Amino acid sequence: MKQALLYAQSGGPTSVINASAYGVITEARRQGIKTYVALNGIEGLLCGKISDIDNEDNDQIELLRYTPASAFGSCRVKLPAHSQDKTKYEQILDIFRKLNIRYFVYNGGNDSMNTCSKIADFMQENDYECYVCGIPKTIDNDLLLTDHCPGYGSASKFIATACSEIALDTNVYAHGRITVVEIMGRDAGWLTASSALASVYGAGPDLIYLPERPFDLDSFTQKCKDVYEKNHSCLVAVSEGIRDNDGKYICSYANDEHKDMFNNTQLGGVGAYLASYLTKKTGIKTRAIELSLMQRCSAHIASLTDNEEAVLAGKTAVESVVGGITNKMVAFKRESNSPYKISCVLAPLCEIAHGTQSMPDKFIGEDCCSVTKEFIEYATPLIMGEVKLKYENGLPVFAKLKNDVIKF
Amino acid sequence: MKQALLYAQSGGPTSVINASAYGVITEARRQGIKTYVALNGIEGLLCGKISDIDNEDNDQIELLRYTPASAFGSCRVKLPAHSQDKTKYEQILDIFRKLNIRYFVYNGGNDSMNTCSKIADFMQENDYECYVCGIPKTIDNDLLLTDHCPGYGSASKFIATACSEIALDTNVYAHGRITVVEIMGRDAGWLTASSALASVYGAGPDLIYLPERPFDLDSFTQKCKDVYEKNHSCLVAVSEGIRDNDGKYICSYANDEHKDMFNNTQLGGVGAYLASYLTKKTGIKTRAIELSLMQRCSAHIASLTDNEEAVLAGKTAVESVVGGITNKMVAFKRESNSPYKISCVLAPLCEIAHGTQSMPDKFIGEDCCSVTKEFIEYATPLIMGEVKLKYENGLPVFAKLKNDVIKF
Repeated sequence: MKQALLYAQSGGPTSVINASAYGVITEARRQGIKTYVALNGIEGLLCGKISDIDNEDNDQIELLRYTPASAFGSCRVKLPAHSQDKTKYEQILDIFRKLNIRYFVYNGGNDSMNTCSKIADFMQENDYECYVCGIPKTIDNDLLLTDHCPGYGSASKFIATACSEIALDTNVYAHGRITVVEIMGRDAGWLTASSALASVYGAGPDLIYLPERPFDLDSFTQKCKDVYEKNHSCLVAVSEGIRDNDGKYICSYANDEHKDMFNNTQLGGVGAYLASYLTKKTGIKTRAIELSLMQRCSAHIASLTDNEEAVLAGKTAVESVVGGITNKMVAFKRESNSPYKISCVLAPLCEIAHGTQSMPDKFIGEDCCSVTKEFIEYATPLIMGEVKLKYENGLPVFAKLKNDVIKF
Repeated sequence: MKQALLYAQSGGPTSVINASAYGVITEARRQGIKTYVALNGIEGLLCGKISDIDNEDNDQIELLRYTPASAFGSCRVKLPAHSQDKTKYEQILDIFRKLNIRYFVYNGGNDSMNTCSKIADFMQENDYECYVCGIPKTIDNDLLLTDHCPGYGSASKFIATACSEIALDTNVYAHGRITVVEIMGRDAGWLTASSALASVYGAGPDLIYLPERPFDLDSFTQKCKDVYEKNHSCLVAVSEGIRDNDGKYICSYANDEHKDMFNNTQLGGVGAYLASYLTKKTGIKTRAIELSLMQRCSAHIASLTDNEEAVLAGKTAVESVVGGITNKMVAFKRESNSPYKISCVLAPLCEIAHGTQSMPDKFIGEDCCSVTKEFIEYATPLIMGEVKLKYENGLPVFAKLKNDVIKF
């Protein structure tokens, strides 16, 4: 039986994770390697939910490159340490043997890279020859050992574009409002920071609050008021993960003060809380906007650079495993900023899971509510270029895969 | 002094109101007519905040065509009846005399058309020769006497695109959620209905709730549960304006049960309320998404058809006033659906303000949670085509006008 490659997706989707899948599939085909996909990541793999890429139509594979979300399904399953419980690893090994899977490529974030590393270790410990590579994927851009992550550029491009449009919209009345835009990123401010691209290149947020700096309600209120009094309008971008001096999430303030009407833990997020707080304290009209899921799925405004790099990461993963390298993740090294140039390097999987990458100090303004020129130089290349989607009936056409489960 | 035209914008912005401004400006130039703009609509006009289009750079006027929001500012001012108070009308007449304004073109929704009509009447009653025309603008699509309104097609294209991307995103886990997307439209379901375009042409909402039909919480809960049990995921689109059998807004249920922590009237909208309610009743995980302001300002995904028709409406308004016609609004008449063809007609301004246009019965599914094939045929042509924006630094380039106030 021919040596085969198994690919799977894990964690929260992005606009370009399928571009990485496209990179994997096309490179594996070019190298004549049989490709299977585990549906719903490790969760599906453990149930034997595997499909054969040869069963998909070629035109759908072409569309896959520009299709958002995880076309092969996702999961949030973590594997225990081998020492604790080998059962699941043995199940996986059994499937790998049956299908002669000698290459395993897992596409996900921090936790997925940890899972990927454990599988690589188990295969080696059991003398089963299988080369494993991780492909990074996260809009949060918080993985260690890589200049940036596929998914971040497209999320940034959506965030900056939406903020530039919202900035124009909220500025039309002679007496406007304070508008608070809540942006994803629980522990790192990369996404919220990208809203500054709108401000630098056109119109965007006046104030930007990142989780890397303690958030002070009084100072925030005063700054919003000052901007509003000057411009009759104020646009603020806040990370969902901002915390006070004691490390307490600001969004949890709302939950302390009330549960929602059904006693669920959370109704509004930090944006809604702050908008409400500002109205109470200043009497100024406010509005809260959550960019929500659109941040990770707005493929129609994906960054071409991000899309191309996601494909490259997929291709590089295949080259790496076929080249006999294992237990690594594809990472990006920035060779130069102007002209922008990156190269792919391989980072040890086990080290990726050790932590998350926050925004470095050099990217954060001294006033704690802005970003630096260095950040703008870092982020601008990542949002460059527009993908050319196919449109039919006025809407983008996305891949529709069969994802038929094979018998084996 | 040369005969001049005055243009102004009013009400909530759209992605294409500036395309109508572009149509007015370029047609007036072609006809050699001096063009002024009142900043912040009637509110600015009453303060003498008027700018001269000749002071703007031509390249900015070109960009105006694709720039969202109201580039000349907006207002929500309504004028009293002449019989009640003539003061403001006399102020306007005084300014018109000073600048020899003989053509007045006002771009807005229902209330703005009413204002426009009152001004036309006052000018006639005072024997001041001034030809007045309204240009419709509303994402809500609820104006009478026109097949559809400029702004609706682009908002629909954004809503359907976002829903198609959200549908893929929310479908990636083996055990997903019920996702409730809240869409604008207080009294008419046109915008919410457009989410069905995503379902018909790709993936989109499973259930659609419009304000034209009474909303029943029990039936809603059961239907969401049924879809979820079948698909392990459910996407629902609800209009912000859904009401129960007694005509009470569902979003007001939340306010009845609690005020927010600062005693403001509203924290979450109807989507957040329903998501919370569903979790309580069914135990299924839920998420609420508000498409919020992006519905009216996402110029990056504007409909080319809508953009072209908005320009045409502006051009037609100028032709109408120069042709000696007054007290009318440019309206669209659908000549045929396949191929799609419209013509511009002139509707009496005074009749526009009489009411709003709800979705007709023939467009609403008998199950009260879907739309008909007739609606899809009506709406599809309106979202066709993509605008070609100029991008710099990875972001759309929008017009930056000087809007310098002239002295007179």
